[in-house]
Amino acid sequence: MDSIFWFIPIASLLALVFAWIFFKSMMKESEGTDKMKEIAQHVREGAMAYLSRQYRVVGIVFLVLLVILTILAFLGVQNPFVPIAFLTGGFFSGLCGYLGMKTATFASARTAHGASQSLNRGLKVAFRSGAVMGLVVVGFGLIDIALWYLILNNIYDHNIFGLGLKVAEEVGLTGAWSADFVANGEWTHAKMVHITTTMLTFGMGASTQALFARVGGGIYTKAADVGADLVGKVEAGIPEDDPRNPATIADNVGDNVGDVAGMGADLYESYCGSILATAALGAAISMNSGAFNEKAIIAPMIVAAIGIIFSILGIFMVRTKEDASAKNLLNSLLVGTAGSSVLILVAIAVMAYLGWFGWGIFGSVVAGLIAGIIIGQGTEYYTSDGYKPTQGIAKQAQQGPATTIIDGIAVGMYSTWIPVLTIVAGIIAAFGFAGGFTDFSEGVYGIGFAAVGMLSTLGITLATDAFGPIADNAGGNAEMAELPKEVRERTDALDMLGNTTAATGKGFAIGSAALTAMALLVAYMEEVRIWLKKVPELGNKFLEVTGAESLTKATIQNFVDYYELNMFNPLLLAGLFIGAMMAFVFCAMTMKAVGRAAGAMVEEVRRQFREIPGILEGTGTPEYAKCVAISTKGAQREMMVPSILAIAVPIFVGLVFGVAGVIGLLMGGLVTGFTLAVMLNNSGGAWDNAKKYIEKGNYGGKGSEAHKAGVVGDTVGDPFKDTSGPSLNILIKLMTMVSVVMSGLTVIYSLF
Amino acid sequence: MDSIFWFIPIASLLALVFAWIFFKSMMKESEGTDKMKEIAQHVREGAMAYLSRQYRVVGIVFLVLLVILTILAFLGVQNPFVPIAFLTGGFFSGLCGYLGMKTATFASARTAHGASQSLNRGLKVAFRSGAVMGLVVVGFGLIDIALWYLILNNIYDHNIFGLGLKVAEEVGLTGAWSADFVANGEWTHAKMVHITTTMLTFGMGASTQALFARVGGGIYTKAADVGADLVGKVEAGIPEDDPRNPATIADNVGDNVGDVAGMGADLYESYCGSILATAALGAAISMNSGAFNEKAIIAPMIVAAIGIIFSILGIFMVRTKEDASAKNLLNSLLVGTAGSSVLILVAIAVMAYLGWFGWGIFGSVVAGLIAGIIIGQGTEYYTSDGYKPTQGIAKQAQQGPATTIIDGIAVGMYSTWIPVLTIVAGIIAAFGFAGGFTDFSEGVYGIGFAAVGMLSTLGITLATDAFGPIADNAGGNAEMAELPKEVRERTDALDMLGNTTAATGKGFAIGSAALTAMALLVAYMEEVRIWLKKVPELGNKFLEVTGAESLTKATIQNFVDYYELNMFNPLLLAGLFIGAMMAFVFCAMTMKAVGRAAGAMVEEVRRQFREIPGILEGTGTPEYAKCVAISTKGAQREMMVPSILAIAVPIFVGLVFGVAGVIGLLMGGLVTGFTLAVMLNNSGGAWDNAKKYIEKGNYGGKGSEAHKAGVVGDTVGDPFKDTSGPSLNILIKLMTMVSVVMSGLTVIYSLF
Repeated sequence: MDSIFWFIPIASLLALVFAWIFFKSMMKESEGTDKMKEIAQHVREGAMAYLSRQYRVVGIVFLVLLVILTILAFLGVQNPFVPIAFLTGGFFSGLCGYLGMKTATFASARTAHGASQSLNRGLKVAFRSGAVMGLVVVGFGLIDIALWYLILNNIYDHNIFGLGLKVAEEVGLTGAWSADFVANGEWTHAKMVHITTTMLTFGMGASTQALFARVGGGIYTKAADVGADLVGKVEAGIPEDDPRNPATIADNVGDNVGDVAGMGADLYESYCGSILATAALGAAISMNSGAFNEKAIIAPMIVAAIGIIFSILGIFMVRTKEDASAKNLLNSLLVGTAGSSVLILVAIAVMAYLGWFGWGIFGSVVAGLIAGIIIGQGTEYYTSDGYKPTQGIAKQAQQGPATTIIDGIAVGMYSTWIPVLTIVAGIIAAFGFAGGFTDFSEGVYGIGFAAVGMLSTLGITLATDAFGPIADNAGGNAEMAELPKEVRERTDALDMLGNTTAATGKGFAIGSAALTAMALLVAYMEEVRIWLKKVPELGNKFLEVTGAESLTKATIQNFVDYYELNMFNPLLLAGLFIGAMMAFVFCAMTMKAVGRAAGAMVEEVRRQFREIPGILEGTGTPEYAKCVAISTKGAQREMMVPSILAIAVPIFVGLVFGVAGVIGLLMGGLVTGFTLAVMLNNSGGAWDNAKKYIEKGNYGGKGSEAHKAGVVGDTVGDPFKDTSGPSLNILIKLMTMVSVVMSGLTVIYSLF
Repeated sequence: MDSIFWFIPIASLLALVFAWIFFKSMMKESEGTDKMKEIAQHVREGAMAYLSRQYRVVGIVFLVLLVILTILAFLGVQNPFVPIAFLTGGFFSGLCGYLGMKTATFASARTAHGASQSLNRGLKVAFRSGAVMGLVVVGFGLIDIALWYLILNNIYDHNIFGLGLKVAEEVGLTGAWSADFVANGEWTHAKMVHITTTMLTFGMGASTQALFARVGGGIYTKAADVGADLVGKVEAGIPEDDPRNPATIADNVGDNVGDVAGMGADLYESYCGSILATAALGAAISMNSGAFNEKAIIAPMIVAAIGIIFSILGIFMVRTKEDASAKNLLNSLLVGTAGSSVLILVAIAVMAYLGWFGWGIFGSVVAGLIAGIIIGQGTEYYTSDGYKPTQGIAKQAQQGPATTIIDGIAVGMYSTWIPVLTIVAGIIAAFGFAGGFTDFSEGVYGIGFAAVGMLSTLGITLATDAFGPIADNAGGNAEMAELPKEVRERTDALDMLGNTTAATGKGFAIGSAALTAMALLVAYMEEVRIWLKKVPELGNKFLEVTGAESLTKATIQNFVDYYELNMFNPLLLAGLFIGAMMAFVFCAMTMKAVGRAAGAMVEEVRRQFREIPGILEGTGTPEYAKCVAISTKGAQREMMVPSILAIAVPIFVGLVFGVAGVIGLLMGGLVTGFTLAVMLNNSGGAWDNAKKYIEKGNYGGKGSEAHKAGVVGDTVGDPFKDTSGPSLNILIKLMTMVSVVMSGLTVIYSLF
């Protein structure tokens, strides 16, 4: 093994060490008054109650899937390592969610306390706590990958379970097991294909966990939010985060489970998925030059490791003066993210100069990083109240809710052009830089690097994401604990800063999901090819045509011909249509789910206002826990059907329409899901900020007709941007992951 | 020429004759009181003013396109007949719009007068007038096709312009022109490929005309509607269609230009497009059995001609008793449409039994017809207030506009599953019945027949569509002429009936657009192949690989390989993404356009209320013409940018990303545009009916909070269902048509 490999676990551990340091330094801060502590305790308990219930439900789903995967493994239509790989992916993703949320809930009162001293101090506590989440995600993600890589390599190299010999037989080496086999390039190549495709399936565990985190968290947070607002703000006329509102704790819990745990699990999945898919592609092409080249496999991990180092550095670059304004703070966050991006590029350029990476890979990483930045800036333009689109919605609000809605939807639809053209340019640039126009397979490998490049700064970008909900919660804490008005103003400034970074983060999440899905799609082809080889009835026929073992232009062409993967194949077309439909139906389900869960919350809050004496006067104590329980239960119940659909449809399409149908499904889901997600995210973000723009005193300010219309827009936008839109990221990736894992079933079933 | 060919022009002429008879019989009805006549006159003038202005603007666009096409023809990258074919397509489509609208505007007062006698009499006048539109569309559509077919055949057969000899040289016949050439199967085959691909381009004229009719009409009608409602109903508190409202005439004109002329042009285009595409495919495969077979080319025209005969019969089957209820009327319409469907199937089955059609074609036509019915019923379920989805929206309306909007969007998104799965099943069934799983090219030909089959009943289904706006206008006329309340009640009953048939019609329009686009996509491939043959540098290389001349499985496979039309080609993928984006951006543009045009209308109505003395008391006369002019101007101005985009993007994508990019663009636009259109149509329809459901007295009835929320939903739904959704049909088809016509440019440009 190349000694540079050790850089990977070292960087991962470094991330975890710094996460620990940041956590400890945050914990040293004071949590403020007793009241603040008590409120934070409530939120923490609610969040943990949700998480433990969520993990129980997810545990059952994992158990069912584990049994299915194990049976499939016994039947021989599944790699035997898959069930275990599936579990570890789910476990680590869950662990990140737990740690991130724990940190966030510890940080909120501390941030509020910090903000009571200065804006800068508030930022520091919130941002460092967000950094814990960022570093935990990248640290655990990469260490898991590195560990599996080490373990599997050793198992094969030492012929444990007889696997080494099996590979030897595959490549035509005869006789008893011999350590010499390991030195054989073909043996190593075949081994690497085995290892990386096995590791890929651990992504399905992460995907499944992410699905429940995103969908469940998204439903939870919006049910609580809408429920709290409709009865509290609108009917009873009490302000947001007022302690008299029984749903207020649930609302604060929601920010944590949706925006912290949900976002974390989503990006954990993209992060691991992109690295694993690129590694699998690397293994597939590692013999293209004639001799085996391990670099092709560990290169994506190295890029990720470099990203970790400079993300940590970037976090330290976020510094401001004591009397900083909100604008200073934003600039300082930008210095951190942009700084780490530049440093990563320099490091990779140096390695390319030294000959370790090809310049093609450097180009692909650049394409991915730049695409991420452009998508973020585009999102900013369409959703920030500093620009025309959002201001236009506010202006339309003067004519009532109908025109507000129409204009907001139009803005969201318009805004798709930037991310779509950016992704298109990014894909083609990455493909071209990596030499795809000469050899197709190299180009696809390059697209994988674009995804890895885009996500290389995840350690710091996730910190700027997770920081928003922490600031939001700090504001809630300040309000409920009745801290001086200036504290709330400071946390509001932090919250608005968080909104900007969150909108950028959402663009980033969907952009990376698209690139990861692209790389996974090709990895799917690799999985199918491996199964074809294993099933003599099909495999022989295929191998006759294919000839080559490594993934080359010719192999891809043969694969395409074999399955008629062209645009005139009606099975592929059927998949394409179904994929587009899935995006819409999945959105409909999550939206309806929010409606139902919010309805239950409304009933409960109304009941408490009616039945608990003195609740509105502040003398009676609301039953916060009941509202938390309702949101929790609602989210758990409602997340099941869409989640099962996302898992079942790819399997079903595979069995009915075969490989061509699956490819169509994944592509249709990708392009429609991507565009729809951008529209939902940006419409939602623009409505939110249009309302805030009116609240600043434009078009009549608070209480005006325009403001009422703005509130309607904001409410419609809530499930758009926080439930349905983000859930589409997972849908896109999970459908691909399920297809990858179930490829054996599809291939073998097609025999009968 | 097969003598059965003459059945085609005869059936077309029959359609025109009956259209004339129905028109005359409608004109014999009394137009009622002087007041009624005067109002009808206003609407008629407004509609004609719009149309003449529209045709002037479209005329300029046609002129520009004509110059471009002619230049391209001179440069040799365009077939020389294309400019003329383009013009006739546009001319006949425009003529249908003119005649249909003329009839509709003559019919409204007569329908109102009929309704003052009995419901049945009102229905009869409205439906027969709608039938004029239906029969004019199918009559002119098919006669144009038949005429071109005759003329071109004679030109080639008699070597006019030396074209016969040119074809002879192509197929290797040597020597001077000889009449014997015509008897040669290969010569005839080559001729037919020339003729049908030339005729196909006449679809682009129809598409371009349809685009402006749909987009312009859609913007016009909603600008007038929203403008009239916002100031008249909401601000001034006067009822709908009140003569004191200056925008009321414009509103009534809007129904005609949007729902009559727009819908007619849209379906004219689908009708011709599906027949022409299938004929082109027929020509391409007409040598597959070894000997040339003309039946393959005229078969789609024969199916259409059979459809015309039984549509006329179906129109006569729509009869009711004098004291019929609204339910009776709906049943009687159903008897007409279902009756003609069954008769068409019987006729084709008989012909198949006699050996004229293959049973495969019969199967494909059945698949298309049934798919059309299922999509219609699905639309009915999701948008009628008799079922849970729409009732659910009404229930959510109790909680305010935000939940109304969220639920309506969710319903629209959900509803996509029926049309998508139906189209998928229809495509696969048609493909399979036609033998596609044995030979691909036969299957694609079958998909064309599914489109032709779905549209075979157009003569009567368009009648049931166009009848709605006529009834709506009759209601307006009755209201403005202050007829007794019972008359308005009867026209309202007719209008509601019209809403049901219109919703079904919209599903039908998008379904046929999808199938037509599919067939056109393969026709695009044929065009590209022909250009490849003409350009030696590319063609020779391609022909070396291809070998075969007729369209077979092997030819398609070679084409796919040559252009790498597979899912791993990043150029194709880029097109796929851009196609999905186009659907969203195009929708955004049309929505924004409605907003701006409606804004101008609001200003004008407010100005008149302010400046004209006695207007609200009924003593001052509003300046109707100014409002008509504003809607007209607004629609003309706003329709340009989206229309040019729809024409320019396919050309641009062709030049930048080549053939693979174009195929991706068309497929992405198709699947995303289809799903999005269904969502927009059904959300809009459901909101409309949810509001009406509340108005019937549910959840508090008129004036309640639920009703206000319902009105917001209805207003948001207006541009959804009447502008953006229907415009997507045209976007899908026009992008394909433009690609077909510009294929020469794409192919030749790729040389440099």
